[in-house]
Amino acid sequence: MRVHVRLKGSIMEQVSVNLSHGGTQSVFTHQSEATGTPMTFSAFVPAHERGARLPVIWYLSGLTCSHANVTEKGEFRRLCAQLGLIFIAPDTSPRGDGVADDDAYDFGKGAGFYVDATQEPWRRHYQMRRYIENELPDLVAGHLPVDMDRQGITGHSMGGHGALTIALRNPGRFRSVSAFSPIVSPIHCPWGEKALGGYLGADRDAWRTYDACALIEDGARLPDLLVDQGEADNFLESQLKTHLLTELCEKVGQPANIRMQPGYDHSYYFISTFVDDHLRWHAERLGKSAR
Amino acid sequence: MRVHVRLKGSIMEQVSVNLSHGGTQSVFTHQSEATGTPMTFSAFVPAHERGARLPVIWYLSGLTCSHANVTEKGEFRRLCAQLGLIFIAPDTSPRGDGVADDDAYDFGKGAGFYVDATQEPWRRHYQMRRYIENELPDLVAGHLPVDMDRQGITGHSMGGHGALTIALRNPGRFRSVSAFSPIVSPIHCPWGEKALGGYLGADRDAWRTYDACALIEDGARLPDLLVDQGEADNFLESQLKTHLLTELCEKVGQPANIRMQPGYDHSYYFISTFVDDHLRWHAERLGKSAR
Repeated sequence: MRVHVRLKGSIMEQVSVNLSHGGTQSVFTHQSEATGTPMTFSAFVPAHERGARLPVIWYLSGLTCSHANVTEKGEFRRLCAQLGLIFIAPDTSPRGDGVADDDAYDFGKGAGFYVDATQEPWRRHYQMRRYIENELPDLVAGHLPVDMDRQGITGHSMGGHGALTIALRNPGRFRSVSAFSPIVSPIHCPWGEKALGGYLGADRDAWRTYDACALIEDGARLPDLLVDQGEADNFLESQLKTHLLTELCEKVGQPANIRMQPGYDHSYYFISTFVDDHLRWHAERLGKSAR
Repeated sequence: MRVHVRLKGSIMEQVSVNLSHGGTQSVFTHQSEATGTPMTFSAFVPAHERGARLPVIWYLSGLTCSHANVTEKGEFRRLCAQLGLIFIAPDTSPRGDGVADDDAYDFGKGAGFYVDATQEPWRRHYQMRRYIENELPDLVAGHLPVDMDRQGITGHSMGGHGALTIALRNPGRFRSVSAFSPIVSPIHCPWGEKALGGYLGADRDAWRTYDACALIEDGARLPDLLVDQGEADNFLESQLKTHLLTELCEKVGQPANIRMQPGYDHSYYFISTFVDDHLRWHAERLGKSAR
């Protein structure tokens, strides 16, 4: 067993660590400058040679989730260990007593939508874009044995939206992009209209930088794309609207492998079924690890 | 997708079903005659040809668990689907408002210890031996496509104790037996002394039929045995005492592969690391499925 998690000073605290599949599954907390709150994330680091730097997959979770859901139910460790992939799962919003919230499951805590809020009372802490795009990568790069030239990003539902929009806004940063049941166009669904309207205000032009389809329409491109979507997903027609992305990719020539999976729903039973395909797909694009 | 879960009458109710790895992960409830309460269990049934009957693995959970822990965190479905194994996970005790309980985590609800209680106030509902040994197998045989001539049993911690003792008391029923971090001799540890004393009374002779080491000392044998035990398990020295089983198997010539795993703890991060080894081990002994 090799554990090379160096914690410099007290910037981030290792809350727990469990040996699993020969690697270490850790949970870390740290004080975030972006959100002004403590933030928690999990990191799986496969066994590796001392000094090696491994490719990293960022996994963004969906509504109501924290880092814990995919960490417990995602079934990613076996293949990450085999392929030599570090797997990072952040939280979905700021947390804590002083953080504004909403009674609904789809707004407020657990529903940060990976945006930088501009509206009161959200803008003080709901700065999840800056946190995921800038602060967390810097922190992880400084503390874990990641090769930041080999990054992939994925996510589920609201986190699929996050993965697609972050990749589209940061061309060249991610060699591989995939998503499970993503919200492909928040501008065009009730979850998205509520969240973007609440966090960003009524000016819908400001929403387009947080909408994968709008970003593609406005000229952004991905290197390639893998999407899995269950056909028995209760949210497919009303919220996810995969066909909008499929049609747009065809129209503009964006390479994409968007797979509709008969009988599968929106749950981790679906995600864990196809996570191996996604991890292999990322690993192929991220190149061999140094293990 | 083929789902062949036939529910005759209203004997058992399908609470949920999710397609996963091509098979169905279901949760069922039914009124138990043994416990006098509703009981819940989960069942994963791989995709299979109509009319086929598949080998079945019984997984007994540990203290504080319900059917849900292994169902969510066990990472067994991928390989069960591939090997054609049905995987059944029962609850660890009777539940409900009218069921006697104790404030401790290691006695009462969630801690049935797979015994038939003889003492008040436990004996009315805490009849987990009869439930797991007789009632649940009959129910499952009548409703799911299991081949009852090809049964394997395993479990974790208290459930490892359950798996070993049930297999030892029922020679010939299980072609394959394994355990993760089992309590190998409840007679010789605080968890076991509390539970067996509480459920069965002070006469320690009555405890021996619920103690794997005592059963082996008294002449019972297993066809073979696979055990994995983490060396960083906090409960190893005080409660699990794996060495008692290792030494006894050597002494009496009981075939056993008892593996000490450096760095691993008592959690599902450990179980999920080695579940593939156990499933392959069972599948080899249960023979080819009819898929």
